[in-house]
Parts: sequence; C-alpha cells; structure tokens
Amino acid sequence: MKTVAERAGVSIASVSRVLNGLSARPETVARVEAAVAELRYAPAAAARSLKLGSSGQIACAFADIGNPVYVAMIDAIEREVAGAGLRLVIHSTHSDAEVEEQVVRGLAMGYADGLVISPLRPTDRLVSLLSASTAPVVVIGNISARADVDTVRVDSRLAVRTAISHLTELGRRRIGFLNGPADTSPGRIRLDAFRNARRGAESAKTIDRRFVNAAEFDHDSGLAAARSLLAREGLDALLCATDTLAIGAARAISEAGLRIPDDIALASIDDTPLARMCTPQLTSVSLRAAERGAIAAQLLLARLQDPAMPSRKRSLRPELMVRESTLSTNSSNRKQRPSARRRP
Amino acid sequence: MKTVAERAGVSIASVSRVLNGLSARPETVARVEAAVAELRYAPAAAARSLKLGSSGQIACAFADIGNPVYVAMIDAIEREVAGAGLRLVIHSTHSDAEVEEQVVRGLAMGYADGLVISPLRPTDRLVSLLSASTAPVVVIGNISARADVDTVRVDSRLAVRTAISHLTELGRRRIGFLNGPADTSPGRIRLDAFRNARRGAESAKTIDRRFVNAAEFDHDSGLAAARSLLAREGLDALLCATDTLAIGAARAISEAGLRIPDDIALASIDDTPLARMCTPQLTSVSLRAAERGAIAAQLLLARLQDPAMPSRKRSLRPELMVRESTLSTNSSNRKQRPSARRRP
Repeated sequence: MKTVAERAGVSIASVSRVLNGLSARPETVARVEAAVAELRYAPAAAARSLKLGSSGQIACAFADIGNPVYVAMIDAIEREVAGAGLRLVIHSTHSDAEVEEQVVRGLAMGYADGLVISPLRPTDRLVSLLSASTAPVVVIGNISARADVDTVRVDSRLAVRTAISHLTELGRRRIGFLNGPADTSPGRIRLDAFRNARRGAESAKTIDRRFVNAAEFDHDSGLAAARSLLAREGLDALLCATDTLAIGAARAISEAGLRIPDDIALASIDDTPLARMCTPQLTSVSLRAAERGAIAAQLLLARLQDPAMPSRKRSLRPELMVRESTLSTNSSNRKQRPSARRRP
Repeated sequence: MKTVAERAGVSIASVSRVLNGLSARPETVARVEAAVAELRYAPAAAARSLKLGSSGQIACAFADIGNPVYVAMIDAIEREVAGAGLRLVIHSTHSDAEVEEQVVRGLAMGYADGLVISPLRPTDRLVSLLSASTAPVVVIGNISARADVDTVRVDSRLAVRTAISHLTELGRRRIGFLNGPADTSPGRIRLDAFRNARRGAESAKTIDRRFVNAAEFDHDSGLAAARSLLAREGLDALLCATDTLAIGAARAISEAGLRIPDDIALASIDDTPLARMCTPQLTSVSLRAAERGAIAAQLLLARLQDPAMPSRKRSLRPELMVRESTLSTNSSNRKQRPSARRRP
C-alpha cells in the first residue's frame, strides 16, 4: 500500500479506501488504479484464496444461457449471491461433459468459493468430481443418488402428467409429444412420463403414439422436430418438453397454415417469461426456475457457513399456467362433442 | 504430488496425468480427485496466477444475459476462447456501474487473463479502470475516445436510418419509435438518429413526432412502452430499438386488436435468432452481434500474445433483414395511395 500511495501521490488511507471499494474522488480512484496497474499490485486476493478459499466469487454452470429457463435461475442465484456481498460468474457449458468437469476442477484453483451446476448428461466422472469437491457444490436437477451434494429438484414427471390432463380435459384426443434430446436427464424423464401417461387408464385412448426427440433444446431444434411431427396428419394437441421447443413448434404450426389453438392446442413446460409474451400466449407448466435458483443459492451460502452439515435434497412441485395457446373459444364445446378418433 | 500419490494409492505419474487433464482410468481420476480434495492441494494455479497472470480463463461482462443479442456475442466469444484452449466466464452486470467496476478490479486478482465488456452506461471511473487495467480489455460498443482499449463498434445510426428508409419506401407515413433507456449509449445514439432522420429531406413528412423511451431493454419494458404509444391513434409503423423491445411491442399490438403488418408495420434492430422464430417473422436490422463477439475475442487473444501493440478500433456496418412484419400483401398499394396525414 505504501508503494502504491507513493506512486499515486496520494495517502495510504486513500489507497486503502479505493482498494476496499469505499467512496473516493474519481481522480483519486483513477490515480490509485493506475498505480496499482503499473505496479501490478494485485490486492493479495489470489494469495488469499490459497489460504482462505475466499475469492469473493460464486460460480454457476448451465447448459445454455440462450435458454430463458436458465436465465431465470441465474438471475435468482445472482440476487442471493449479491445479497451476501459476493459476485457471480457464469459458465455456459453447452452440456459438454469435459467443460463441466473442467469447471469443477477449476474450483480447486480457488477462482470461486462454490458452484451451482445443472448438468443435463451427468457422467460418473462428473459425479465423482462433484462429490470430491472441497468447495461447496449444489446441483439443480437429477443426479445419481451417490453424489454427496445438496440438490434442488422439481417433479417433471408430474409436469408432463399435469399438461396431458389439461389437454384431455379440454377434449383433445390426439396429443403428440415434442421431447428434447432423450440422452439428457430431462429428456429421458419427460419421455418416460409421456409413455406412462399413455398407459394410464384415463388418457390411454387420448394420447397419440407420436413423439419426436429434438436434437437440442433450442428453437431451431423445436422447429425442425415439429415439422417432422406435423408432416403426418391429425394431431389436435402438441405438448413440448420446454418453452424453447414450443417457440419453434409454434413457428412450424404457423408455417403449416394451422391455427393455435383452434386446429392444434400447444402446451409446454418451463413457463419462462417468453410464454406470456408470445401471441398466442403459451400454456406452460411452471417448473419454478427462479425458486429453484434462489433455493440453490441459499443452500450454497449456508454450506459456506457450515461445510460439515449433511447434504440436503429439496424438491418442488410444478404448477400449470393456462393461457391462450390451449384455450380456444369453442373448447367447452369440444369437451361435450366426442371428437372423431382417426388413427394415423 | 508425492503426498497426493500416497494418499490416492497411485503413482506420481498418474497424479500428474490427472492434474494436467490427460486421459486416465476413471477410477484413477476419482481417487486422485478425492485425494486432492482431502489434502486441499490446489494445483498451484492461484499461486501461478500471481506470477504469470495465466488463469486459463477469459471473462466477459454484458448487461443482461436474458437478451439474445448478448447470447449471440457470448457464444461467438466462447468459440474463439475455447479454440485457444481457454475457458470463458460470464458476468451479467444488469448495467450496474458498480458491478462493472468490480469486474474490472477483479481482473487484477488474476481470476481471468482478459475481459470483453460492453458497458451501456460507461462512467468516467470505468473508463479510467479499463485504461489502467494490466489485463487486456476489449470493449464492444461506444466508449469515450480517451479509453485506451481495443474496441469493436457497429454503426447503429445507420441501422436506424436503414430501418426508416425501408418503412418509408413501403409507403408508411406515421412511423413511431420505441427506444430503449435514453441514458444508455445505445439509447442516446438511436434516439438521436431517429430525430435526425425526421429532419432529413426525404422522410421529414413521414416520421411521426412520437417516440417513447422504455424503462429497460427487456420484453416487459417494450410491452409497457408500446401500450403507451398505441394508446394514441394513428401509427402505421413502429420501429423498436431492439428485438427484445419489439417482442413486447408485438404483444401490445396484438392486445390492441391490430394486425402486423396490415395495420401497423413492425421493424426492429439487432436481428437476434428470435426474429426469425416469431410469427410474423420480424424485419430487423442486423448489428452482426456474433461477428462483433468473434472479433472482440480475436482482438483479445492477439493482445495476450502481444500486449504492447497500439489499441485497435474495428467498426461494422449493419444489414437490413426484411421479413413478414413489414411486408403486407398490399404494401405496394400503400405506396401508390397517399395516406391520410393526420396529426396527433
């Protein structure tokens, strides 16, 4: 500090104020910062992180920051983290297992004090790394029970069942399913729930055999997958595994000259802010992304205080948000009038 | 390494392989990682970063990762950074000057080797910090000429002029403008360009006096601002400062019972992927976000190789992408038929 003060031509107290982020005259700040830069005086944080593991940063890692469901989680995590006086750094992993592993290994290098991660395709190796991490880790989503970490989950099977019940109650009789990639945890679970719903007594006759797995969870994949589903005739409802896929599906439905919801009802899962902003507004089952993010951050911050506590598992229930994309003006008529049940 | 090897019950060579990310049997990796965790042996990276400034990470900081224009930039930056064998960490600053300043200060702590930043409201203090940073910094956007950093810009004035020319050529006579917050660089420049276009000979009579500044650049702000514009009668075209605002405006237009583009043409700026995915698809002026991101990353990586080179300024031209939201079937008729020019 003395060297910086001499170089900057200001008092040691001023240097201290600037480095600790307290208010100071802009000119003073500029001079101190310049002196710091010249002297390459890193405020000992890198050294400190070796000793205390306190970088002032929390990391999070999600598959795709282009998906608004992750943005909702990240914004919620950020609020909690900022409230604790920490800064959030974000990784967009594109669900690449190697990138996810690198992020967890990077924690050991002390650039962040903890991690919230939501792996779509958790490998055994990742599970080992997460369990072995000395820095606290919280997982959002489904992960092997042998992973000794705090987790926040949502019942996405119930989300699929809820959406299908809604569509069948509206009198829809030929419900197709546009899934995400089936090699991901969410894709596997939602497809399984869709298949189980077909076997269920109530809706066995109302759910189409048809489903398609999109290549990824993005709009373009939803558009392409929906085109292939719509190429065959006769769906009167389409459930999409995520809002991003549903946005692409809505485009494909429009291209096919069909109207939502009169010709085909469109329902989705995630209830991101865009669901309210579309025209027609999208019926979607909320997976309470913001709440999951906030809870994950709270678990992480608590663990930073008390690293030894046993790992905790939190689970949330989904919630159906009914909007224009399933509510045609004649939907009540539909319910009365038995629809023709043609087979493809 | 010897201690880790003993603890893990593997050879020192195996420890070295695992810590350097070379291939190894999953069981070996798990044992080494566990031993590292137990011993809290951080692979000396934090210490190394003090000496060499090589963290293996590049940071970027954008106002809002919920805006797809930043996602496009970030994805492009990530590709370049990954190509150089580095990892990207992302900050979502919500355009908070204090957060931006903290991010730049954080660089001095060595958690990242360089920064790409796009400040919406660059303060003098931020400009000083950026200029004084020993870690390389690249700015995307407009920043004070006294900032001694590499910059990548796009001519957003030309983007506004291009969009207005397009609308006037289609025969639109009452063009309103939905701007972003006017206290941001993009908001100030676009509003100025809109006002100048009104003064221009060609379009003086065709541009409405009406504009509104949205509170933020997000959908909800666009929806609220568009409602207030539409509450007064008679616009036949609306230019929005960003795609995010246009998505909100499209919702407001639909709520008002108006059709796009027959009643009101909708044009936008940014040309994010969502512009193609909306129905109707959105006419938007591309600001070439992915290219700006890629160039910014390339400038940064080049500077890491050669820190002493003079700062470079790159500038790109916008490009109009015409889609359904301005192309009504009777737009050619409109052009022939002089529209009524009522004043508000």
